[in-house]
Amino acid sequence: MGAMKGVILSRNPSARIIDITHDIPPQDIGAAAFNLLACYQNFPAGTIHVAVVDPGVGSDRRALLVEAAQQFFVGPDNGLFSWICEREGEFSARQLTNEKFFRRPVSATFHGRDIFAPVAAALSLGVAPEVFGEPLPEILQADSLKPKVIDENTIAGRIIHIDRFGNCATNVMPADLSAKRVSSSWTITLNGRKINSFRRFFSAGEIGELFCLKGSAGFLELSARNASAAQILGAQPGAPLLFISAPLGEIKAASN
Amino acid sequence: MGAMKGVILSRNPSARIIDITHDIPPQDIGAAAFNLLACYQNFPAGTIHVAVVDPGVGSDRRALLVEAAQQFFVGPDNGLFSWICEREGEFSARQLTNEKFFRRPVSATFHGRDIFAPVAAALSLGVAPEVFGEPLPEILQADSLKPKVIDENTIAGRIIHIDRFGNCATNVMPADLSAKRVSSSWTITLNGRKINSFRRFFSAGEIGELFCLKGSAGFLELSARNASAAQILGAQPGAPLLFISAPLGEIKAASN
Amino acid sequence: MGAMKGVILSRNPSARIIDITHDIPPQDIGAAAFNLLACYQNFPAGTIHVAVVDPGVGSDRRALLVEAAQQFFVGPDNGLFSWICEREGEFSARQLTNEKFFRRPVSATFHGRDIFAPVAAALSLGVAPEVFGEPLPEILQADSLKPKVIDENTIAGRIIHIDRFGNCATNVMPADLSAKRVSSSWTITLNGRKINSFRRFFSAGEIGELFCLKGSAGFLELSARNASAAQILGAQPGAPLLFISAPLGEIKAASN
Repeated sequence: MGAMKGVILSRNPSARIIDITHDIPPQDIGAAAFNLLACYQNFPAGTIHVAVVDPGVGSDRRALLVEAAQQFFVGPDNGLFSWICEREGEFSARQLTNEKFFRRPVSATFHGRDIFAPVAAALSLGVAPEVFGEPLPEILQADSLKPKVIDENTIAGRIIHIDRFGNCATNVMPADLSAKRVSSSWTITLNGRKINSFRRFFSAGEIGELFCLKGSAGFLELSARNASAAQILGAQPGAPLLFISAPLGEIKAASN
Repeated sequence: MGAMKGVILSRNPSARIIDITHDIPPQDIGAAAFNLLACYQNFPAGTIHVAVVDPGVGSDRRALLVEAAQQFFVGPDNGLFSWICEREGEFSARQLTNEKFFRRPVSATFHGRDIFAPVAAALSLGVAPEVFGEPLPEILQADSLKPKVIDENTIAGRIIHIDRFGNCATNVMPADLSAKRVSSSWTITLNGRKINSFRRFFSAGEIGELFCLKGSAGFLELSARNASAAQILGAQPGAPLLFISAPLGEIKAASN
Repeated sequence: MGAMKGVILSRNPSARIIDITHDIPPQDIGAAAFNLLACYQNFPAGTIHVAVVDPGVGSDRRALLVEAAQQFFVGPDNGLFSWICEREGEFSARQLTNEKFFRRPVSATFHGRDIFAPVAAALSLGVAPEVFGEPLPEILQADSLKPKVIDENTIAGRIIHIDRFGNCATNVMPADLSAKRVSSSWTITLNGRKINSFRRFFSAGEIGELFCLKGSAGFLELSARNASAAQILGAQPGAPLLFISAPLGEIKAASN
C-alpha cells in the first residue's frame, strides 16, 4: 500500500488519504466487500474508495469505477463493490480503459499501484468519471445479500463475514424477522447447533453462551462473550444457516 | 475503524486523523491502556484521543470525556484512561450524555462510531467540553501502576503489558530501585525463574539470556535478545513478580 | 509508532504523515528494506522516509540520514537503506550526531521516538541536511541485490523477501535472463525442487502449481495461486536458488 499512497501523492500532493483496513486475509474478496459495506455510508459525499483485493490481477477481469451513494469506488470487477450496488439499487459503473491515466508500464501483478491509485488521484483532481472509460451495463455480482424465505416459519441465510473477534455476521437483518417477532421466537441452526438466545449487546451474554445480536453493520450476528463464536461453531464464511420460528408455546429466547 | 474515520470526516472535513494502533488484541483493555500511556505525552496540547476497546458496549458502562495533560480522551469508562489520570494526578472527567452530538440511531454494539467519533469531531470543531455532559467525580480505575514496597529489600510488582516482541513491561520504574542501586543488586523472581541481569539496551544481552532493561515507556521490562521473553517465561499480563535486593556480597548483576 | 507521530506533530503541526507499513516481523531488517525498496520510487521528491526496525538500538550502531533519488531516509545504519543506495548508485549519507534536534533524554531503547522522528520533523521544517551531522563515506551494506552469474547457463540468486501471501521474491530480474529467453527456458532449483513454469500473473497458474512471475517490485518471484509458495517450498529469506538454462530440446515452460 505504500506504493499506492506514493503514486496518489505524486499526482495529487494535497490528496487526503485515509486507511480503512489493511488486515484483509489474502485473496478474501468477501471480507473486503463486507468491510466496505459496513463503513461506506459513514463517509462524506465525493469520497473515493480504492480497494485492492485482487487475485485476478493481470487476467481479463475488468477494472472498475463505480459511482453509488454519491461516492466513488475504484478497483477490480470481482464482487468487491457488488453488495454496495445491491444495497443502493442505483449506481453506475465504467470500465477503466483510458490508459492515459495509468502508471506506465502497467504490471501484470499490481494494478492497485498502476491503475487504481492513479485513476483515484485523477478523480480527486476533478477529472470527470466519463473520461476513464465506457459505461458497463453490469458488474460481477457476488452472491446476493438477501436471505431466502422458505416459508413463513423458515428463513435460509448464510454467514457472510467473520470478524477478527470471531463474530459471524449473517445476511439476515432484524427486519427480516420482525413481522413474527411479537408472537414467536426464532431458533438458528448452523452446523448441527441450535442457537435461540438473542442479546442486545455483547456483555449481556453469559460466558460460554452462543447468542445472536444485531451487529454494527445492521446484520444479525452469532457471537460469544469474550470468545470466538466462529471457533466454537467451526463456522466459515458462506456456511448456510436457518432461522426457524418456533410456535408460541416453545419460546425460550431470552431478552437481556 | 473505517466507519469512525468516516463519521469524523463527515462532521469535520478538515480533521487530521492519526492512527496510533489497530493491533490491540480483542477485548484487551490493558494493552490499549498501556499503548496510550506510552505515547500520549508526545502529542501536542489539544490532541483528541479516541480509544475503542469496549467489551462492555451497550451495557450501563459509561461513556467518557477525560481532560488531562491539556489533551482530550474519549472512550468507554472501563479503565482505558485510568493510568493516564493516575500519572497526571490532575484531570477532569465527564459522562457523555448529550445525545445531540451522537450519530442516530445509537447502536448497542458500536459506540466508537455512534458516540465517541462524533463527540471527538464536535470537540475538534470547538464545542466546549461542558456541553457533552456532567462532570464525574471519579472514573473506573484499573489496578494502580504503583508497585508495593514490602520492605526495604523487596518490591512487589506485576507485568502490565507484553508487546508484540514479547517484552514484558512491569509496573516498576528505575526510580523505585534507585535508592539501593549503588550498594546492592536486585533479583527479579517470576514464575519460579530468577533474573539478575540488567542491560541498558536489547543487543547488549547475550543470545538466550533473560534480562531487565528500562523500556521506552519508562518501566523496567523483562526482555530477551531477538526472542520473546514472554514465551520463555510463560508470562501473562498481571503476573506478579518480586524485585529482591541482595546483600552486597551476592551481587551478580552485570552492567553492560 | 504513536509516540513517533506525536513527536513529529508536536514539532511540525502541519507535517503530513503517511503509513507505509507496520506489519514488519520483529527485528526483520530485510523485510523492512524490501518494502522500502519496493515503494520509494513512487513517492514525490522531498519525501522523508523514517524506518525503525532497529534491533541494535542503544549500541554503537550509527544513526543515519541518507539522501538518494531526491528523497530522504532517516533510521539506523543496519542495512535498511543499503538496497536503495545500491540501486541508485548516487547517494549521500550523514551520521546523525547533532543532539540539538534530539528529544531529551535520549533513551537506549527507542531512537525512533528520540532521534529519527525529531530529525525527520526538523527536515520537514527546512533544516538543511548538513546541519544534522558529518558525511559518512559509506553505510552498512546488506548482501548485494545482484545475482551471481556462474556461467552462461547458470545464475545463482537467493530469496530476498517473503510477503504475507507467501510469494518468494528473488534477487533475479527478468533482464538477468532475457539474453537467453528466446532460445531456451530456465529451470529454478530451490530446496531440491525444480520449477520451470513461468506465468505472467497469479491467476494464470494452475491450482497447486508452483510458478515464477515478475513481481510488482520488478524481481522474479516464486508463487502459487491462492496458496503460499513459501510454505510449499519450506523457503526462508536468504535461501539460495539456481536459475539453470536448459537446452532447447528440453523446453517445458509454459506461457500463459
